[in-house]
Amino acid sequence: MLNGQVTLASILSGDKRSIARAISAIEDDDPNITGLLKQIFPTTGNALVIGITGAPGSGKSTLVDALAAHYRTANETVGIIAVDPSSPFTGGAILGDRIRMQAMSTDPGVFIRSMAARGHLGGLARATTDAVAVLDAARYDKIIVETVGVGQDEIDIVKTADVTVVVLVPGMGDDIQAIKAGIMEIGDVFVINKSDREGVLRTEKELEAMLSIAQRPDGWTPPIVKTIAIRSSGIDELAGAIGGYAEFLKAGGPDANGRRTAVAEHRIMELLRDQLLRRALEKGLTQSEFKSMARMVAERRQDPYSAVEEILARLGIL
Amino acid sequence: MLNGQVTLASILSGDKRSIARAISAIEDDDPNITGLLKQIFPTTGNALVIGITGAPGSGKSTLVDALAAHYRTANETVGIIAVDPSSPFTGGAILGDRIRMQAMSTDPGVFIRSMAARGHLGGLARATTDAVAVLDAARYDKIIVETVGVGQDEIDIVKTADVTVVVLVPGMGDDIQAIKAGIMEIGDVFVINKSDREGVLRTEKELEAMLSIAQRPDGWTPPIVKTIAIRSSGIDELAGAIGGYAEFLKAGGPDANGRRTAVAEHRIMELLRDQLLRRALEKGLTQSEFKSMARMVAERRQDPYSAVEEILARLGIL
Repeated sequence: MLNGQVTLASILSGDKRSIARAISAIEDDDPNITGLLKQIFPTTGNALVIGITGAPGSGKSTLVDALAAHYRTANETVGIIAVDPSSPFTGGAILGDRIRMQAMSTDPGVFIRSMAARGHLGGLARATTDAVAVLDAARYDKIIVETVGVGQDEIDIVKTADVTVVVLVPGMGDDIQAIKAGIMEIGDVFVINKSDREGVLRTEKELEAMLSIAQRPDGWTPPIVKTIAIRSSGIDELAGAIGGYAEFLKAGGPDANGRRTAVAEHRIMELLRDQLLRRALEKGLTQSEFKSMARMVAERRQDPYSAVEEILARLGIL
Repeated sequence: MLNGQVTLASILSGDKRSIARAISAIEDDDPNITGLLKQIFPTTGNALVIGITGAPGSGKSTLVDALAAHYRTANETVGIIAVDPSSPFTGGAILGDRIRMQAMSTDPGVFIRSMAARGHLGGLARATTDAVAVLDAARYDKIIVETVGVGQDEIDIVKTADVTVVVLVPGMGDDIQAIKAGIMEIGDVFVINKSDREGVLRTEKELEAMLSIAQRPDGWTPPIVKTIAIRSSGIDELAGAIGGYAEFLKAGGPDANGRRTAVAEHRIMELLRDQLLRRALEKGLTQSEFKSMARMVAERRQDPYSAVEEILARLGIL
């Protein structure tokens, strides 16, 4: 059983220790968390979930901190999930994040947490969505999910937000290309951070050109906001742009652009994938059988396709 | 059945059209490709697979092209897989890649292909590994897998190579931190590209400091190579460093560092995950049932955990 102190009531009351424990259980793939998540689910949907993504060095974290401070000034509570592709060896967040987390967590109206992919089961997208649900149930007004948005996982994660913000920096030049269409297409709001740097006009023009080509099915034209996050400059405008898109969504009626259904599809798929793999590894074969199967494949004595068919056959679902 | 012209013999003979068709079938999740992949498997293991990763703007693609040209001068054949996190909407590679592909594909000793994540089933890691196997069977001497290495997927992909090269650029400063431990730990060789830029010494020192802290279990000290890819400067040294690690691996005996078994484990896991999800969606529920389930979740009338349990129960593997 999950630690007795983590209950639906303790989450709904916003108890930080309960929230932290619930998120740890989510990260650890603790099967006992599912019951709580089921209970929580109907209470969610009140927070505005903001996904913020950008390349390393774009100043995302500073921007998130400045935005959080802006919401705090307006007396809104803020939950922050910093998604960290993280080390496959250490399995943890980097030191900088930890220091940052400690600094912000002295504010009772802010909950900040770093999440990392761990182990073979993966499931970072599922874990992030579940953690957002916990913060939503705990009545945080704004929930910011921050990712280094170059990988597919990170794009998938940030797509599940209500509003997605893509952060660029001046002088990326050809790199707007390098950031690829994937990340450009998910942006509801674009930020050019470090906008006191050389090349800001060129980046803005390139971005405008790119946005004018891409016609969005919902008719929204993503605004471009220039910020200097380290000096909190442009943050009001950013909050305004985020709020603008949230209003636009609301005006369209429930799930006007089909985004919520798409997110739900994605979420069911992720959960299904995780659960299937878990059951297969539990029922299909032991850890040592799996290891010896891997060695056979490594030595090229068995091909991986036949190995997988063997596991499926044992499960009776070939 | 797979197109009749794609056979084990046509792949082994190196027929480019067959290779391209086989890789398309892999990308399209064509179930008929499995038979061919099983046949191919015992013939693989001859190529040196080189994974190259780095942040957007590090000049990876130019570096890969220069390295490929180097191998071609030595009369070695080169297969290149450019992994593209890609657009969730267009599902394809960007224009720049396509132009590049056309330019290089006039050389009969080079095969270049862009691969993108597509659709709900994901499986980019699996698709990439399978494509590498096809190129390996087709007797390419060097296979280069190029990724934008910030996401977990991309780290996973590049880890399956024999030799992993991490590309940095000067003046990243704090961004060496931002690139996170995950990508730093997988580098067998480090490149500082654009090394005519300011800040190269600082980046080199920071990198050296970071590498001196991280003790590798295999005792290898990753060399740092400075390149200016656009002028093909430092490419001989890079090829030498890659070859050096390949020799080091070979000297340790078969699977000295357990890497091949770890890669096999990862590969079985990925395949299993893909196959399980495919069967579940085939047998567990129809597309329209799935859609209406997603709508229920979107409207918060059913929680996603119960939805997944329903699917698992139908499959009889709850």
